Amino acid sequence: MALPGPPPYFPLASSFPAAGLALDASLTVVSVTVFVALLCLCILVGHLLENNRWANESITSLLLGLCAGSLTLLASKWRSSRLLAFDEELFFIYLLPPIIFNAGFQVKKKQFFHNFSMIVLFGVVGTFISFCLISVGSYFLFQEIGATSFGTQYFLAIGAIFSATDSVCTLQVLNQEETPLLYSLVFGEGVVNDATSIVLFNTVQKLNFNNIDALTALKLLGTFLYLFFTSTALGVAVSSCSWALQSSSALTGLIFFQAGLVSAYTIKKLYFGRHSTDREVAIMFLMAYLSYMLAQVCSLSGILTIFFCGVVMSHYTWHNVTESSRITTRHSFATISFILETFIFLYVGMDALDIDKWRQSDSSIRTTFAVSGVLLALIMVGRAAFVFPLLNIAKCFQNNATVDFRQQFIIWWAGLMRGAVTIALSYNQSSSSSSKDGAFLITNSITVVLFSTVVFGSITNPLIQATLFRHSKPVPAGDYDPASLEDIRLLFLEVDDEGFNEGRHNPSNRNLGLLIRHPTSAVHYFWRKFDDKYMRPLFGGRGFVPFVPGSSTSMANENLRLEH
Amino acid sequence: MALPGPPPYFPLASSFPAAGLALDASLTVVSVTVFVALLCLCILVGHLLENNRWANESITSLLLGLCAGSLTLLASKWRSSRLLAFDEELFFIYLLPPIIFNAGFQVKKKQFFHNFSMIVLFGVVGTFISFCLISVGSYFLFQEIGATSFGTQYFLAIGAIFSATDSVCTLQVLNQEETPLLYSLVFGEGVVNDATSIVLFNTVQKLNFNNIDALTALKLLGTFLYLFFTSTALGVAVSSCSWALQSSSALTGLIFFQAGLVSAYTIKKLYFGRHSTDREVAIMFLMAYLSYMLAQVCSLSGILTIFFCGVVMSHYTWHNVTESSRITTRHSFATISFILETFIFLYVGMDALDIDKWRQSDSSIRTTFAVSGVLLALIMVGRAAFVFPLLNIAKCFQNNATVDFRQQFIIWWAGLMRGAVTIALSYNQSSSSSSKDGAFLITNSITVVLFSTVVFGSITNPLIQATLFRHSKPVPAGDYDPASLEDIRLLFLEVDDEGFNEGRHNPSNRNLGLLIRHPTSAVHYFWRKFDDKYMRPLFGGRGFVPFVPGSSTSMANENLRLEH
Repeated sequence: MALPGPPPYFPLASSFPAAGLALDASLTVVSVTVFVALLCLCILVGHLLENNRWANESITSLLLGLCAGSLTLLASKWRSSRLLAFDEELFFIYLLPPIIFNAGFQVKKKQFFHNFSMIVLFGVVGTFISFCLISVGSYFLFQEIGATSFGTQYFLAIGAIFSATDSVCTLQVLNQEETPLLYSLVFGEGVVNDATSIVLFNTVQKLNFNNIDALTALKLLGTFLYLFFTSTALGVAVSSCSWALQSSSALTGLIFFQAGLVSAYTIKKLYFGRHSTDREVAIMFLMAYLSYMLAQVCSLSGILTIFFCGVVMSHYTWHNVTESSRITTRHSFATISFILETFIFLYVGMDALDIDKWRQSDSSIRTTFAVSGVLLALIMVGRAAFVFPLLNIAKCFQNNATVDFRQQFIIWWAGLMRGAVTIALSYNQSSSSSSKDGAFLITNSITVVLFSTVVFGSITNPLIQATLFRHSKPVPAGDYDPASLEDIRLLFLEVDDEGFNEGRHNPSNRNLGLLIRHPTSAVHYFWRKFDDKYMRPLFGGRGFVPFVPGSSTSMANENLRLEH
Repeated sequence: MALPGPPPYFPLASSFPAAGLALDASLTVVSVTVFVALLCLCILVGHLLENNRWANESITSLLLGLCAGSLTLLASKWRSSRLLAFDEELFFIYLLPPIIFNAGFQVKKKQFFHNFSMIVLFGVVGTFISFCLISVGSYFLFQEIGATSFGTQYFLAIGAIFSATDSVCTLQVLNQEETPLLYSLVFGEGVVNDATSIVLFNTVQKLNFNNIDALTALKLLGTFLYLFFTSTALGVAVSSCSWALQSSSALTGLIFFQAGLVSAYTIKKLYFGRHSTDREVAIMFLMAYLSYMLAQVCSLSGILTIFFCGVVMSHYTWHNVTESSRITTRHSFATISFILETFIFLYVGMDALDIDKWRQSDSSIRTTFAVSGVLLALIMVGRAAFVFPLLNIAKCFQNNATVDFRQQFIIWWAGLMRGAVTIALSYNQSSSSSSKDGAFLITNSITVVLFSTVVFGSITNPLIQATLFRHSKPVPAGDYDPASLEDIRLLFLEVDDEGFNEGRHNPSNRNLGLLIRHPTSAVHYFWRKFDDKYMRPLFGGRGFVPFVPGSSTSMANENLRLEH
């Protein structure tokens, strides 16, 4: 990681030379030490605030990061507030993938696939709408404030940067048990949205704005087509990646990656768990990461790829590994992701007081706050502009999941947080533009991220309690209307929850009626059938491994269910 | 990580700009992708060679790294063989700690503590002896070869560098089940030895050799005293770290680190497992890492600290966490360490063909091999010079563990491997000396590491089979003479293995006789009593958590026992 200048504010660093490390590494060591200590503190405080309805992990670590940053700032006599400078490479290559992977690994697949069309609609179309709105809005409003002298490319970049919602914070604010529908919608959208906005951003970076704007618009359309090309190509990548990850040894994955290296004999022979759980877990983790990196290298969206890897692995692979591997993977992936999330928010918090940037941007505090306010307003408008229309349009087509206004409001609200992706992208943009404009962008994005995460984030939870659960207790399966709830339960065969087999006795004469009443469920139903009939026998999965009730597997599952 | 120059040999890199990453990160992405793919390959091949008595994980990954390096070298038209340059900071801060921690976490504590005095004797005195021998020997022999023009400091550095055994490779070569005594001796020595040689190296770096040599020798004595100061100070650090890590929430640790922050109320209240396993595992891992970094900052030996952290955590903390946490920690720590070990050897293997270094060192191939041969000979002599004498001296004092000559031979042989620590230290040395001398040192240390790991490493396992198990099957408890075996078993109360309680019925009238016959065991016995009476009730541990036979805990333990 990049490091700030020599530290007069670390007395320890001077007494360092005798330690078991190279001399020049001393500063890194001190920074890392402080950082790890802060991480421990974050976990402790987050644990103490467990039952606090206002706070959550991200806010805690963000605020702790701010405190630490200001302390460092004081200690360094207003020279630098950064123990570790924000490094987008570190973020995109090492921090983000495990988090997204774990999200896919832990997501309730039933809900997710049931709302899949909705999620993609939100993630792609919605993001594009808010991108346009924020770009155009900032283009006109910035002149009012007096922050001008920016090119078209700059405003488009701003649009892409600020249309990237923060899925990490959403994960912590929404509860998968209480509101599964909202969770899957908002979170799933968040993942697709990240991918979309990043691709948009990169295309904006590549565009040349010296030509007339008609061509630019055309090129933006090209972006969009490219985006869909990406998604389709990604589909291939994901399927191959699933093919890579389902067999009990992830060996076929190695076939895919080192084609012709292995023969059918080894496939049959290779069952990692027999030898060691560690190797099994290691290969699962490495394959997932490899899929992300491969997607990046092949110019696909790594975020989507690794997310689907997580989904596929928890759907097939997870059921084929030894029992201890199951518990280990579940918890270790969750733990890693947990640590990294805390790390990121701590990071952003400490980076907020980046004194140099604030100095470089000659705009006054007043201007900064005005611009940030405008951006926040644009974010809210931009999100409102697609959430309510799309949801109401969807209402006409799929009538099983009626999303009433209160839920629409929550969906709108829960996507207002901006996070690390925004920061990372604005650092990337600032590197390509002048130092003044770059600093201007970074300071504003930091302000927006801080405000949205802390204020919006802390309000969200009470808001959900107030709006959704004021009248009624939440129904366990989510927000369906009780009438069709039972039918859908039967349709889904409840594979992701308890009784896998009960669906077998499902009277098939009722299906026809259900298909007419629930088109989406029907698609899901046939997929389910296909999955049970062909996929699972081939790739494994629940119901095809001996599942002894009362065995430690079920006990472990109990633990998991209790915890998640 | 540092990166080599622009890559003409990565066609993918050109097609990269559209991917979801900053443009300049493309090379890193490609390198990391290739590296992760290689890691997967290593695991696969290592798995296939599982039952091969000659190969082991380190050798496999080392050779794979060599192949990858040579391929890169060809692809780059003899320009560079390095995807990722060897970075000692990366090694010492991120790679080494988890490995050593896991070693302490998984080590059989009974064996380890029983041979503690022996281990320290080997690690400290032994290392110092071989350090002197190698330094003096190289000083005289290098002139014979014609490799002169080095200062005294250089030769002392060589002595420190090449007296650092490779504990990682030992872990994989020796089997803890088959030869527990040898394992605990050789491995425990390896850990202490790493610490010693690193401290020796750092002190040699700080010495000023323009004065007369009498003063230098005096200063070296100072080193030695400093070393012991370190060890004692370390004891304090470790005890505090144990105090940090034993309570069921590691909260008292946070008291130690953020003194006065928390009150007795929160201690009572704080039980992480209740809320989430993830937080529990996270805090365990972070606290251990924090102890390492703190030790580094305070100029203590981080390696020893984190090793004892691992021991303490598996002895106390591990028994206080939830059952799923237990399985998770056991396996995830092992997995992380496993991945990192593979990573390091892959790394060293790829770095071996560092063409620039070979060009820089103007010494001919012949000279290089002569020097490497001399170094290897010195390593063997230097180790023989303390293994056999010390073991025979020890034989006179402790008569329960009779180490016959065959075992002495194995102990001597198993410590001949040189590994990543040697490489890292020689890179450190080369940075301080001229590029020519630096290159000379690095090329030689690479040759020594490659040869010792591949040749010695592959021979070791068959050698053990041939020497130890030719006549007799191994006794499960190790290499004690069967006569006193039963007594010792009773003495130890077998806490680390099965029946914890059987020792309760131990007829105390036999103890006196045993104390006379087995002084070392007696010490261990009283520690055991103290531990049971005071430590465990206070800090928790086996026997003080409800242990239902047939519960998933015991099943999990079964799994663990089967795997390890």
